[in-house]
Amino acid sequence: MDYPHIARQTSQVLSSYLTYQAVRVVMAQLSQTDPPLAIWLSRFSSTERIQDGERYLQELLRERQELAFRVMTVREHLADTILDSLPEMVRTSIRQANMQQRKQHLERITQIAPDSAANWPELES
Amino acid sequence: MDYPHIARQTSQVLSSYLTYQAVRVVMAQLSQTDPPLAIWLSRFSSTERIQDGERYLQELLRERQELAFRVMTVREHLADTILDSLPEMVRTSIRQANMQQRKQHLERITQIAPDSAANWPELES
Repeated sequence: MDYPHIARQTSQVLSSYLTYQAVRVVMAQLSQTDPPLAIWLSRFSSTERIQDGERYLQELLRERQELAFRVMTVREHLADTILDSLPEMVRTSIRQANMQQRKQHLERITQIAPDSAANWPELES
Repeated sequence: MDYPHIARQTSQVLSSYLTYQAVRVVMAQLSQTDPPLAIWLSRFSSTERIQDGERYLQELLRERQELAFRVMTVREHLADTILDSLPEMVRTSIRQANMQQRKQHLERITQIAPDSAANWPELES
């Protein structure tokens, strides 16, 4: 397994996701302070556009420089605030999800067993 | 800003992404050891299906239990191996990207300036 490569790819996905979350934060703030601008930003931030966080910011810098700077500040702030808690959260959630999947699967295959047992008369005696 | 909520959402995205990466790892391993099964897994793992990691695994457990267990083991292993390096990687990458965006934007707006200056004859003397 090429761990460094997977780590780099995961880091890129996470950077882009934090950019998306920063846009949502700025939109929520604007909806309180400047609703028309919030609507403008919402229309500008289409799903395809926001997929690539850096290109999105380049385009936003051309259109509304002050909003782009604000998104950049918020994403840096989000990174400083939430990232350290993530490794433990994700590890715990994956472990719990794995346990849950195994448990449900076991329940499913043992639920089938009693019905199948009906085909073996010797088990019913 | 509702940091705990954003952290939870980010953690879910990251768990799902590691499931996707685990599927890719298993596919790469199978392409060496059991190419027909690699093709089967590749067909099974459509983009829409893999978007929701837990539902994907439930379906895979029903179809090919041993592959689902393998994906679960790999994603847990990936989580143990790469997650701790991510906070620093992502922070650095966001800081560098922000600097780069600001630099490019500054270059763009100062490149415009000389052309605009041509409209002001007094600046040319």
